[in-house]
Amino acid sequence: MKQYPEWIQEVNGELWLTENDRGNMQVSYRLKKIIFSKESSIQHIMIVDSYDFGRMLVLDGVVQSTDREGHIYNEMITHVPLSLHQHAKKVLIIGGGDCGAAREAVKYKHVTAVDMVEIDEMVVQACKEHLPSVSGNLADERVQFHYRDGVQFIAEKRNEYDVIIIDSSDPVGPAIQLFEYGFYEQIKYALKDDGIMVCQSQSPLFQQELVKGIYEKIKDLFTHAAVYQATVPTYPGGFWSFTIGTKTTPITTEHIQIQDDLQTNYFNQNILRSCFMLPEAMKL
Amino acid sequence: MKQYPEWIQEVNGELWLTENDRGNMQVSYRLKKIIFSKESSIQHIMIVDSYDFGRMLVLDGVVQSTDREGHIYNEMITHVPLSLHQHAKKVLIIGGGDCGAAREAVKYKHVTAVDMVEIDEMVVQACKEHLPSVSGNLADERVQFHYRDGVQFIAEKRNEYDVIIIDSSDPVGPAIQLFEYGFYEQIKYALKDDGIMVCQSQSPLFQQELVKGIYEKIKDLFTHAAVYQATVPTYPGGFWSFTIGTKTTPITTEHIQIQDDLQTNYFNQNILRSCFMLPEAMKL
Repeated sequence: MKQYPEWIQEVNGELWLTENDRGNMQVSYRLKKIIFSKESSIQHIMIVDSYDFGRMLVLDGVVQSTDREGHIYNEMITHVPLSLHQHAKKVLIIGGGDCGAAREAVKYKHVTAVDMVEIDEMVVQACKEHLPSVSGNLADERVQFHYRDGVQFIAEKRNEYDVIIIDSSDPVGPAIQLFEYGFYEQIKYALKDDGIMVCQSQSPLFQQELVKGIYEKIKDLFTHAAVYQATVPTYPGGFWSFTIGTKTTPITTEHIQIQDDLQTNYFNQNILRSCFMLPEAMKL
Repeated sequence: MKQYPEWIQEVNGELWLTENDRGNMQVSYRLKKIIFSKESSIQHIMIVDSYDFGRMLVLDGVVQSTDREGHIYNEMITHVPLSLHQHAKKVLIIGGGDCGAAREAVKYKHVTAVDMVEIDEMVVQACKEHLPSVSGNLADERVQFHYRDGVQFIAEKRNEYDVIIIDSSDPVGPAIQLFEYGFYEQIKYALKDDGIMVCQSQSPLFQQELVKGIYEKIKDLFTHAAVYQATVPTYPGGFWSFTIGTKTTPITTEHIQIQDDLQTNYFNQNILRSCFMLPEAMKL
């Protein structure tokens, strides 16, 4: 008899993964097999192969990224700030262990360095080996991996980055500090004057107060702030928000031409425009 | 011991509704109570009260509309064609038993008549009584209910409607005819020359071929055709498509000013523009 974590059930000889982090709603995925399953010093890490979404990265029982639609989240958290900046050289990614954001960032020729600060090395190794459709088995020499706490890493940096991407998991456990005012303040100091920061900012449907709280903090610290959205099918409610802040650069997509060889599946010129157009109830 | 349909489970004294129509993915909602549960001659009809989405209309175990986000679907299927038309007088809704589309349609002063053709009277009665946040307990005298088969109803109509909304359930069981070429052809004859038709056209994530097939049929029959999208959290994958066809009216949102007293929660001027801006992989 195999031992599975509590979010894996065997039903009639078939394996199911159930996300049970939200007490009032559960989403279950039928699995072909479990490819990787290990406890790191930080969290429980799984890579599973599912029928509907292909391979999935699952941290502490919560789906983070999948073959089928991991690109939506990663393209949106990376190409929106990099398109707005237009000539970013140095990029910092905090979190982003699936390597998808780093993979998108190195599509820009003007990007000369990407610092990838991920607290959990085992996530990166597992995704490089078992989730290549998302990680791209990233081996670009511009990317430097730092297996460290993001809060400590950023505290030493001043006026250094053109774009900072906070690609965290949910604000519970290891990621909770990445949603605090003091952390966003350090991000501001680490950015150059024309720098742009972006963070994933949770679900406008289930966490409206949290979305608003993140926006208020960033608006308070930065000169310009805005929220944009995308549909991410494996995140609760399918509706996801990102919050962007800049010290001097106006957040306007009107005259922005995106780089034409990004080879994306979701992001494009029209998505860059439309992602800032929010539903009536989401207006801030 | 109460008898529940197979999609309702009692777990540790609590009721859960599980959508099990998609073999590889299941979504479960924790329920406060079951408000209405009855088998009509067409289908099994339930109104339940859930923790995350409030009251829900459930047909044959599939969630159709909810307190929390039923407005997104209903606003998008109604206000996009009615905004594009600008001065629609006569509107036909086929399906739409939750009454939400009819409720949105009568927000236009220039609309003088709405024919609501729903095959299952029990759905309308249940929603009027138990799902008022969606149905608005619709009693506008411009709305005339016809409890008939939509295919038969439309066969008698020629050059009569300004806007036709096909607000069907999934293409299984009673709704399957509403996705056929011959039906869209009758829709075309029933429309005036400057008329606009729209249908819900399923999930671009899970039913890409179906979405494409619907678009191809409408493109073949009508002069102009386009697909637009919205995030509908309780539909599979959260990502939903609508397909629109017109006989003469160009489908362009550029010079369209929406009516300013629509009192919507999702639709607005920006959403009208952005809903036609499709992700790279959805381009047709």
